[in-house]
Amino acid sequence: MSGTSVEADAENIIRAITPSLDPNRYKGQAGKIAVIGGCREYTGAPYFAAISALKIGADLSHVFCTKDAAPVIKSYSPELIVHPVLEESYSVRDEEKKFIAEKVLAEVDKWLERFDCLVIGPGLGRDPFLLDCVSEIIKHARQTNIPMVIDGDGLFLITDNLHLVSNYPLAVLTPNVNEYKRLVKNVLLAEIDEQDASKQLLSLVKRIGGLTILRKGRADLISDGETVQSVSIYGSPRRCGGQGDILSGSVAVFVSWARRQGLATDGNLATSPFTHSPKNPTILGCIAGSALLRRAASLAFENKKRSTLTTDIIEFLWRSLEDISPAH
Amino acid sequence: MSGTSVEADAENIIRAITPSLDPNRYKGQAGKIAVIGGCREYTGAPYFAAISALKIGADLSHVFCTKDAAPVIKSYSPELIVHPVLEESYSVRDEEKKFIAEKVLAEVDKWLERFDCLVIGPGLGRDPFLLDCVSEIIKHARQTNIPMVIDGDGLFLITDNLHLVSNYPLAVLTPNVNEYKRLVKNVLLAEIDEQDASKQLLSLVKRIGGLTILRKGRADLISDGETVQSVSIYGSPRRCGGQGDILSGSVAVFVSWARRQGLATDGNLATSPFTHSPKNPTILGCIAGSALLRRAASLAFENKKRSTLTTDIIEFLWRSLEDISPAH
Repeated sequence: MSGTSVEADAENIIRAITPSLDPNRYKGQAGKIAVIGGCREYTGAPYFAAISALKIGADLSHVFCTKDAAPVIKSYSPELIVHPVLEESYSVRDEEKKFIAEKVLAEVDKWLERFDCLVIGPGLGRDPFLLDCVSEIIKHARQTNIPMVIDGDGLFLITDNLHLVSNYPLAVLTPNVNEYKRLVKNVLLAEIDEQDASKQLLSLVKRIGGLTILRKGRADLISDGETVQSVSIYGSPRRCGGQGDILSGSVAVFVSWARRQGLATDGNLATSPFTHSPKNPTILGCIAGSALLRRAASLAFENKKRSTLTTDIIEFLWRSLEDISPAH
Repeated sequence: MSGTSVEADAENIIRAITPSLDPNRYKGQAGKIAVIGGCREYTGAPYFAAISALKIGADLSHVFCTKDAAPVIKSYSPELIVHPVLEESYSVRDEEKKFIAEKVLAEVDKWLERFDCLVIGPGLGRDPFLLDCVSEIIKHARQTNIPMVIDGDGLFLITDNLHLVSNYPLAVLTPNVNEYKRLVKNVLLAEIDEQDASKQLLSLVKRIGGLTILRKGRADLISDGETVQSVSIYGSPRRCGGQGDILSGSVAVFVSWARRQGLATDGNLATSPFTHSPKNPTILGCIAGSALLRRAASLAFENKKRSTLTTDIIEFLWRSLEDISPAH
């Protein structure tokens, strides 16, 4: 691998991993996603990630957030199952911390095995006690072999704690430009190199070891240390906050689907109708999520122009998917 | 009865039990439904059940839930009347339990006689203290001769407390595949028998005694121990969470309507224009609710494809009913 990127065959990948809609299936078989995020300050981000998962076709979408955030996130949509279980320092006395952390973990553990993928970070905030609890959640999820998409404040957490994700092939990081800058600085002790972006991404993934990174940008670059794929189909020039949350929720669904399609074989996608595409389910999930978001953003922008918001883009996720992989 | 099912004449049944819209009627005569459910964790499920009842044509729809759940459920829709009266263990000290349980029951009792049907279970949760209170509510409702549709965590409660519903002909259970599995295991000490599904359902109903079960599945099977009716018209291949809540709310309305049509006579539907259909109002209500949900799900799926969520299906309830039984 020379360090140059290849434009991904995104539409064929979406068609290959999206499951057929079989009337014999029952609730849950098209995916159960959980978002870990939502605190006193942020409630929109976890909602965007969780509702995007449902709108793409997951059957169940949960949110684990703080007690303050829960009623608000619930009120955005009755379709989400919202668990008010996380705690921030301001509501916990020092002597209670150990006990409360154990309680938080026990609450999450009750559910963990049921999920096909976690999204860790949207609207998580940076409270040290809360982040400590989330570190433990990541360790448990890893023991249980659950894929994780890590974004936003989840990236803030793992950038200083790379052991949480290194050599875990089911981890996906989805940094934006600033988050990527911090990762590159911390891991490669360097600045971003735009000239050799693919090569630098490969180095970064290899140095952290055995995971997948989706570097968001004008073109999204995706690497697992073996290959660098790019997705550069046109999206929208609007940069409203929240699009990253759609991406993390979408990638979670597609990684689950790619993994499910592949689990019948060696964990990779064997039924792939294309020969030159990668077969790692996290790479496939990233490519599919990136391409779908771009297409939905483009459709939303055609309709709403400068006024396009994240909610508008979410409303076009189904049309984007339907155009590429019709339900019937 | 041989234990084979008969495809129900669902459309004629819907036409026969749906009341005409007479300008002389006043508020409440088209049905007053109450949902018992909604706790700290779940708020979507009781909302879906309660709003579905209204969207089909009930005049009033109440929800009895915990204090935490009430503001959220209220925020989903100003159409619902939401009573924050239930309590979970975490907010009640041991020495208060008896007093609080009596208070909860007194609050519900004030309203009980006004309702035409209760839906017990959507988003109820599994808190032991709360479930104890709901057991008492079921006993009171039974003394008052109010029909009850029991779903979700309500089924969890009654599976271990079958005396609450056995030999109560106005009780309807609506188990999904997992809930049915638990019932069959507890009552028949057996596994699910897919080959002889109708026969097993008959045995289950007879063993519990004198109630109606709607077993959800690819075809819904409905039995009161006398007959097994099936509803298998095509719905949607989407298995998003919440469709069961639409069903429980819909069945509640149709049971009320079937009962009202029948009350003029011997409790059964005498004015039935069809000779080979059952006349038990709980069976008729189940058939109507099942068929209407399937039709609405099918219409929603045509429009929203993989993105179809419970909210989308609810928006098609009126069209489904209007197609079968036009308001004028």
